[in-house]
Amino acid sequence: MNYSVIVEVTLRPGIADPEGATIERALPALGFTGVRAVRAGKLFRFDVEAASSDEALANAQALAERLLSNPVIEDATARLEGEVQ
Amino acid sequence: MNYSVIVEVTLRPGIADPEGATIERALPALGFTGVRAVRAGKLFRFDVEAASSDEALANAQALAERLLSNPVIEDATARLEGEVQ
Repeated sequence: MNYSVIVEVTLRPGIADPEGATIERALPALGFTGVRAVRAGKLFRFDVEAASSDEALANAQALAERLLSNPVIEDATARLEGEVQ
Repeated sequence: MNYSVIVEVTLRPGIADPEGATIERALPALGFTGVRAVRAGKLFRFDVEAASSDEALANAQALAERLLSNPVIEDATARLEGEVQ
């Protein structure tokens, strides 16, 4: 079976986020007020071949932690989106 | 009220994704097989001040389409994560 997986990689709380801070500073001049605490991260979407949804999610989580994120400064979370043909 | 919002920015279908393709090519050598169709994107998380959840979502979607994505090659989707104090 193939499972569609989404991995979210976000900076850990307390780690400086220059990209998010820059966006936040720019917003008022561009007409958007009341936006705070902007944090930027990465998103990956892929298909995993596995015998079960549990195995697919475990593989995706391992891949996310080992290869798609830097565990010193980032958190990685995998979630199943569904089955694909 | 403050609402926590997540914006996902992904490449439109058919747009070349060199980052995703590079990850996909590297995975077998790193011990992960059966992973296909890797697509890389961006994730933003922020708080929006608005009178209602509908207004917060509309503001976030406008911001996502106008400032956080390139509408020629990317899709942007905002979703509410919940209320924050």
